[in-house]
Amino acid sequence: MNDFDTVRDYLTGLQDRICHAIEGADGRARFVEDLWQRPEGGGGRTRVLRDGAVFEQAGIGFSDVSGTALPPSASANRPELAGASWRACGVSLVFHPHNPHLPTTHANVRHFRAMRDGETVAWWFGGGFDLTPFYPLDEDVLHWHRTARALCEPFGGQARYDAHKQWCDEYFFLKHRNETRGVGGLFFDDLHGDFDADFAYMRAVGDGFLDAYLPIVERRKDTPCSEREREFQLYRRGRYVEFNLVYDRGTLFGLQSGGRAESILMSLPPRVRWEYGFAPEAGSEESRLAAYLHPRDWLAELA
Amino acid sequence: MNDFDTVRDYLTGLQDRICHAIEGADGRARFVEDLWQRPEGGGGRTRVLRDGAVFEQAGIGFSDVSGTALPPSASANRPELAGASWRACGVSLVFHPHNPHLPTTHANVRHFRAMRDGETVAWWFGGGFDLTPFYPLDEDVLHWHRTARALCEPFGGQARYDAHKQWCDEYFFLKHRNETRGVGGLFFDDLHGDFDADFAYMRAVGDGFLDAYLPIVERRKDTPCSEREREFQLYRRGRYVEFNLVYDRGTLFGLQSGGRAESILMSLPPRVRWEYGFAPEAGSEESRLAAYLHPRDWLAELA
Repeated sequence: MNDFDTVRDYLTGLQDRICHAIEGADGRARFVEDLWQRPEGGGGRTRVLRDGAVFEQAGIGFSDVSGTALPPSASANRPELAGASWRACGVSLVFHPHNPHLPTTHANVRHFRAMRDGETVAWWFGGGFDLTPFYPLDEDVLHWHRTARALCEPFGGQARYDAHKQWCDEYFFLKHRNETRGVGGLFFDDLHGDFDADFAYMRAVGDGFLDAYLPIVERRKDTPCSEREREFQLYRRGRYVEFNLVYDRGTLFGLQSGGRAESILMSLPPRVRWEYGFAPEAGSEESRLAAYLHPRDWLAELA
Repeated sequence: MNDFDTVRDYLTGLQDRICHAIEGADGRARFVEDLWQRPEGGGGRTRVLRDGAVFEQAGIGFSDVSGTALPPSASANRPELAGASWRACGVSLVFHPHNPHLPTTHANVRHFRAMRDGETVAWWFGGGFDLTPFYPLDEDVLHWHRTARALCEPFGGQARYDAHKQWCDEYFFLKHRNETRGVGGLFFDDLHGDFDADFAYMRAVGDGFLDAYLPIVERRKDTPCSEREREFQLYRRGRYVEFNLVYDRGTLFGLQSGGRAESILMSLPPRVRWEYGFAPEAGSEESRLAAYLHPRDWLAELA
C-alpha cells in the first residue's frame, strides 16, 4: 500500500482530532477555519483558535501542495530528482498557552513524493514534536519524553528514540544564543525505508502528540501566575520568534517559495517582548530554565 | 587622507552627538553604555535608552572589529580579497518611540577595509537611514526625503538621491508581504570612488540623520493616541521583526559570524504582537498605511 490519498486522509483526520481535543481542553474558544488555494497547485485548511480560556493562540494547518518541477534547492541531495513533479502534504501546529506554567508546543507530520510521468520515483516522511517550557517541571519533561520513547517501541525502540531525540536537539538549536528552543522531543526527516512501517511511525508521532501534551495542559492550565511570570514568558517567546525566523527551514522555505505568509507565520506568538541585556537573577525561578536548554538524557536523569 | 582612525573618530563622535540629541528630545531617560570586546579582534560600545518619555527603546551601537582572514562569503564578488585581513567600523541605530504617531527609524554608517601585509588593498563605505511610520503624514515623509535629497547635493545631487533612494526601497522590502518596511530614505553599500568624497558623503548621511528625524520627533511626540493605535503599532512592529530576522544582511551575518547577539538584536522592538489574518478595516486610519508601503516618488507626489 503506497497511496498518497491514504496519507492525506490520515492527516485531515488528525487535524480534526487535535482540534476537537484542544477545543475540549480549552473549554471556551473554537477554531476558525480558512480554506486557501495555491496558484501553483494545491491548497490547505488553516485553523486558528484565539483568546481561549487556556490558549492565547492555537494554530494548526493542513496543506496538500504540488508543483510541476522540483526546485534545485529541494533536490540538492538527490540530483536525480531535479525537475520532477512533486506533491507534499502535512499537518503543522504551534500552540501558545496563556499560562507561563504551561509550555508552548509544536508538532508536525509530513509526507513528500516526487513523480515522473505519473509514477512515484521517490517518497519520504518527516515529522516530530517538541516542547518549550518557561518554568520547566521535571514531571512534565519526563512525561513528554516517556511518551516519545513509548511510541518508538515498534519502530526500533530505544535506538529510534535516541536518534530522533538527538535530531530534535540539533534541529531546534539557536546558535547565536547557544541554547536549544526547549526540552526537545522527536524530529525526523527524509525517512524512506519501508513505506508501511514509515507511514505507521509517522502516524504514531501524529497520534502521540496529544498523549504527550494533553496531560500537561490538564496539570498546568490553572496554575496561578504572576505578572512577573507573564513578562518572562513574553520575553522567552522572543527566542521562539528568533528560532522560527532565523533558523526554521520550513518557515524560510515557505516564505521564499511564495507560500501563504499568514499560514506560515501563525506559528509566531500573539504577544512578545525583547529586553536588551536581560539575565535572570541568580537563584530566581527564571534562572532555572537555562539548565533545560541544552541536550540532556531526560529519561535517565529525571526518572 | 585615507586614515581608518579618522573615520573611527568621526563615528564615535557621531554616536556621542546622536545620544546627546536623543536624550535632549526624550527629556527623561539616559543612555546606558555597555563596552564589549570580540575574541577575534576589536569591540564596541552599545548604548541603550529605555522607558523614556518619548522613546520606548533607543539603541545605538558603535563597533570597530577586525579579523585575520576575510571569509569567502564576504569576498564573493572580489575573489582577489579572499583571505585578506580586514577591519570594519560603523554606527548603527534603531529607535522605537512609544507614540504610534512618531515613526520608528533606523540609520547606519559604516566603513570597511581589507589589508595585506599592513597595506590597504580595498576599502568602501556604506550607510543610509530609513523611516517606518505607522500613521504616515505627508508632511513628515516630505521632510524626511527633502533632508535626504538636500544632503546629496554636493555628491551628485538628484542622481545620487535617486539611486540611493531606490536602493533603499529595494533593500528594505519584505518579499513575503509584498511591501516595503516603510517610506524608505537612503541606502548605499560598497561605495569606493574617491576616498575623501565618499567619506564626506558618509558623514553627510550620518550628520543628516538628526536633521531628518528630530523635527518629526518634536512634531509628533505629544500627539494623543488611543489603545487601538497602540495595538496597531505593536502589530506593525511584527513586520519590523520579520524584516530584520528574515532579510537584513547585517543582522544575519552578525548572528552567523558569532557577533554579540544582544547588540545585534537591540534593533528588535521591546513589545510586539502578531495577529493571524489581520487586515485594517476599509476606510480606517490603519488602512491608510498600505499606500505608503511601495516605492513612490515622494518629492514629486507630495510637494
